[in-house]
Amino acid sequence: MRFADKLNAAWTRSGTLLCVGLDPDPTRAGSDVAGFLVSVVQTTADLVCAFKPNVAFYEALGPARGYEVLARVLDAIPPHVVTICDAKRGDVPHTASAYARAMFDELGFDAVTVNAYLGGDATRPFVERPGRGAFVVCRTSNAGARDVQDVDTGGRPLYERIAEHAREWNEHGNVGLVVGATYPDEMQRLRELCPDMTFLVPGVGAQGGDLEACVRSGAGVDGRGLIISASRSVVYAPDPRAEVTRLRDRIARALDRAHA
Amino acid sequence: MRFADKLNAAWTRSGTLLCVGLDPDPTRAGSDVAGFLVSVVQTTADLVCAFKPNVAFYEALGPARGYEVLARVLDAIPPHVVTICDAKRGDVPHTASAYARAMFDELGFDAVTVNAYLGGDATRPFVERPGRGAFVVCRTSNAGARDVQDVDTGGRPLYERIAEHAREWNEHGNVGLVVGATYPDEMQRLRELCPDMTFLVPGVGAQGGDLEACVRSGAGVDGRGLIISASRSVVYAPDPRAEVTRLRDRIARALDRAHA
Repeated sequence: MRFADKLNAAWTRSGTLLCVGLDPDPTRAGSDVAGFLVSVVQTTADLVCAFKPNVAFYEALGPARGYEVLARVLDAIPPHVVTICDAKRGDVPHTASAYARAMFDELGFDAVTVNAYLGGDATRPFVERPGRGAFVVCRTSNAGARDVQDVDTGGRPLYERIAEHAREWNEHGNVGLVVGATYPDEMQRLRELCPDMTFLVPGVGAQGGDLEACVRSGAGVDGRGLIISASRSVVYAPDPRAEVTRLRDRIARALDRAHA
Repeated sequence: MRFADKLNAAWTRSGTLLCVGLDPDPTRAGSDVAGFLVSVVQTTADLVCAFKPNVAFYEALGPARGYEVLARVLDAIPPHVVTICDAKRGDVPHTASAYARAMFDELGFDAVTVNAYLGGDATRPFVERPGRGAFVVCRTSNAGARDVQDVDTGGRPLYERIAEHAREWNEHGNVGLVVGATYPDEMQRLRELCPDMTFLVPGVGAQGGDLEACVRSGAGVDGRGLIISASRSVVYAPDPRAEVTRLRDRIARALDRAHA
C-alpha cells in the first residue's frame, strides 16, 4: 500500500487531522513506562489519524531498554493508524540507508522525520519507497530556528529552499514537511510553495502553537494536508481521551471557520 | 575532566590523529557482531586516539539489539581513548536534551556528532558540558552535500555560517566540526575560519578521501586539530592492526611533509 493511500484512509476513518506524540517521561509515566503508553494508545487510537513517538525520549531511557519499550508501544497501535518515527535522522547515503532499514524494516514505522542538511542523495533512502513516508524538517518552532533556517539565500530564507527540495523528492506523493505550529505566516508561505504536500505540525498543546492559525494557514482546500500533533498535553492529561476529544473538536471548528 | 584535555591526552598517548569507526556490518562480521567489534577494539586501541561508532549501523541490527551490541563494544574501549557517538542528532531544545542524556549519560560517550539545522538553542544541550564534546556537521563528503551546504548565503556557502555558529558555541573548547575528507579546499577555508577547532574527518579509506591533502589543509600548526577516521577499511581488513599501522604511518608522513 502506498503511504499516501494509508494516510488518506487514516484521515477518513478517524475523521481528524489529530496525531498523538507518544513521548515517555519516566517522572510522569511511573515505573511501567511501556504499560502507561500502551494504555494511552488503547484509549485514543480510534480518535487519531497517527501516532508519533519521538525516539529521543526512548533513547533517554537507555537506548536498549528504550527501544524495547518502543516496540511494545508500536505493537499496541492498530494497523490502520499511521505511525511516524520522529527521529530527524540524516547522514551520508550509505549510512542513511542503515537508518531507513532501522526505522522502516526493523521498527516497522510507516514514516520518519528526516533532516535534509546532507542533501538529496542522503535523503533518498527515506523517500524512495512509495509505501513509506518521509517528513523533511523545514521550519521548527524553537526560538533558535532562525539561526540557520531563516538564513537569507538570495532573498529567500533557507527553509523555503528545503521545502522546494522536498517537493522535488516527492515523486511518490510520500514526502511531507515538518513545520512548527508557532509560525502561521511561514506555514502559509510554505503552503503556497507546496500546495499538495502534507505538513506534520508538532507543537500544538504544550509547545504553545496556535491551533486555529495553523489550520487556517496550513490546511488544504480539501480540509486535509495536515497532521497536527500534540504530545505531552495529551499523554499526561488526567484523561487523555477527553483531551484528544477536545483537540479534535478544536481542529474541526477551525476547519469549519477556515472554509466558511 | 574537560573534553579538550581528554582529547589532547589521547593525541599525546597514541601519537596519532587516527580514529577508527566501529560500524557493524553483519554480512562481514559474522553472527557474533559484538565479539567481532570487541576484537577490533582490543587489536587497535593502543594505536588510535579515538573510536567512532556510527549508531545508524547498530540501529539497523534492530535498535534494541543494536544498542546492546554497542554497549558491549563501548565496554571494551580503554578509558583514555576518546569515544565519539556518530549520531548526527538534532531536535528542538527539550528533545535535544533527551538525546544528550542518551548519548552522554546512558551510553557514556565523550562526544557526539550534531546536526545544527535547528539552531543554537537546539544545539546547546550537546555543547554546554565542558566534559563532553560535540562535532557539528558542517561539510560532508557525499555528492549531494552541495544541495544544502553550499547554498549561497550572501556570497558565502551555508556551511561557512554553520562553522561560525559552531565557533560561537565553543565556549568550553569542546566544539568541533565534521568535515569530509574529499574537499581539501573547503577544509582549508574552514581551518582559516576556525583555527583552533578540531575537525572530525570521516571518509578516509573506503569513502576515497585524500588523506594527504586533508592533513595539509586541516592540521593545525601544532600537528593536531584533526581526528581522522577510517571505518570499514580498517574494521573489515584482513589484519586491522596492520591497516591501522599503515594509516598511522601515512598520517605521520603527511604531517612531516605539511610542516617541511
